[in-house]
Amino acid sequence: MRRRHLIAALALITLLALPAIAAEQIKPTPTAKELLATSAPDEWRTPDPQNLLVMQLATGRVVIELAPDFTPLHAANIRTLARQHYFDGLAIVRVQDNFVTQWGDPASDDNGDKTKLRPLGKASSTLPPEYTRPIDPKLAWTPLPDGDVYAPEVGFSNGFPVARDPASGQEWLAHCYGMVGVGRDNGPETGNGSELYAVIGQAPRRLDRNLAIAGRVLEGMPLLSGLPRGDGPMGFYTRPAQRTLIKSVRLAAELPAAQQHPLQVLRTDSPTFAALLDAKRHRHDAFYAVSAGKVGLCDIDVPVRETSSAP
Amino acid sequence: MRRRHLIAALALITLLALPAIAAEQIKPTPTAKELLATSAPDEWRTPDPQNLLVMQLATGRVVIELAPDFTPLHAANIRTLARQHYFDGLAIVRVQDNFVTQWGDPASDDNGDKTKLRPLGKASSTLPPEYTRPIDPKLAWTPLPDGDVYAPEVGFSNGFPVARDPASGQEWLAHCYGMVGVGRDNGPETGNGSELYAVIGQAPRRLDRNLAIAGRVLEGMPLLSGLPRGDGPMGFYTRPAQRTLIKSVRLAAELPAAQQHPLQVLRTDSPTFAALLDAKRHRHDAFYAVSAGKVGLCDIDVPVRETSSAP
Repeated sequence: MRRRHLIAALALITLLALPAIAAEQIKPTPTAKELLATSAPDEWRTPDPQNLLVMQLATGRVVIELAPDFTPLHAANIRTLARQHYFDGLAIVRVQDNFVTQWGDPASDDNGDKTKLRPLGKASSTLPPEYTRPIDPKLAWTPLPDGDVYAPEVGFSNGFPVARDPASGQEWLAHCYGMVGVGRDNGPETGNGSELYAVIGQAPRRLDRNLAIAGRVLEGMPLLSGLPRGDGPMGFYTRPAQRTLIKSVRLAAELPAAQQHPLQVLRTDSPTFAALLDAKRHRHDAFYAVSAGKVGLCDIDVPVRETSSAP
Repeated sequence: MRRRHLIAALALITLLALPAIAAEQIKPTPTAKELLATSAPDEWRTPDPQNLLVMQLATGRVVIELAPDFTPLHAANIRTLARQHYFDGLAIVRVQDNFVTQWGDPASDDNGDKTKLRPLGKASSTLPPEYTRPIDPKLAWTPLPDGDVYAPEVGFSNGFPVARDPASGQEWLAHCYGMVGVGRDNGPETGNGSELYAVIGQAPRRLDRNLAIAGRVLEGMPLLSGLPRGDGPMGFYTRPAQRTLIKSVRLAAELPAAQQHPLQVLRTDSPTFAALLDAKRHRHDAFYAVSAGKVGLCDIDVPVRETSSAP
């Protein structure tokens, strides 16, 4: 919404024009870029390459981190599918506005030819739901202080947005922007990871605890969100030419080192992440006159960088 | 995430297979389509054509309802701009992933030629902020029961998502998906409606009370959200060819009747809207095993229909 980048200049003018105490009061909140620039190397986590899916679309690269702490059976099945090159030549088949982008086997669509379904090979065709799991006290847990409409407690574990219910002792991954879920039919055990979706709009938290979440997009969200919306029911494309081709999906561990472009994720139990949360909650600068004083779980995008960009 | 549309069939089978009392307990929540099909004509509101902006893009039509109950000076200025055909030939200049799509005069961009700025004519170049307003007891108010991370109270007034703070006596429009805000520079009185943005991702509620909201997109969101993301800082396009042309922006009141395609918005103080809220909070059917029991302000898309589709 900003037309010109006047923040730094205006903030400086303001600081110069006021006495020291006033300047202190209106000291602008540091930006995310400024906070990340002072982060320590050990505040960044390098995801296990066995948990990184590298999807090459016709339009570019999408990298997804699997979440075996929450959905281990789904992670294992998706790894099996990737190792078999199951996804190669499949496509993005559905883009529903303010909801999800979904990819998989076009033959599984309503109008698809079921005799042409690609076999799953050594992967399982059904899996236990893994929609929630018992709260694991060994997992790092960074609670958020401002509440949540949908769950008693929310926070982050190892870079993933998590909701918790102490009464039931359960926790689950939350359907925030960029989270990757497992498509299924009506039965709870009909998902297997061969059809995946990414959230591209307002977090559909009503899906929480009703679907397994496999992971999170670390890189390439615009390639999934910036697509023409599907013209069929639920955003399915009605013509094959509208689909985006998946050239390949590989585990990063299987790629030659030169193709891995290793990514790092800011640790959500790090001081810099805490400072980012604080800055987001209390942002006050030349543009923001009113600080929200709060932040919601799905309003936080956990920072990712390429290892090569680390100082 | 659903691969096939089995809900109706499965629900029927389940109802037939179980005794009456069990069938009653698992009666599927009505869908929005089913609830709207039984709505009464007077539950729909026809927006004043003086409040409808019809934006013809090279790719199709976007219709925006202005919100003069909340931002009357901005509505008046935008009407003045539209009557002057100010927007004709301007463009969508910025698409920032999970944030906003913004349109206006390309010459106002960082790298634009300021000598080529289009004059605002009879429109004001600055306006009072109108970020909040005193709570108006005469406005219809449909409160939501499940709380909000950012504001003490949230609900709907005349189809718009609203946040309230009884302590300060103020209310304001919330930055939900599809809401249209007024771009500005750092100063609070630098917005005038010549540059507008629509929210295309997770609701950036931190912007609430920091920017004026002019209205809401009633039709055509996919034309704003499904665009390639900008490659420059903050999602600005760096090359003119990436922009989407605005062929024209007109007030519906100025269009010939045949071009108006009048829209109706479900009244947010109607029984059918209340039923929709209830269904959303307690959704339970063949697909949803766990009902959220809650709903957030920005998770509700107020229904819109073309008058011609009214029964």
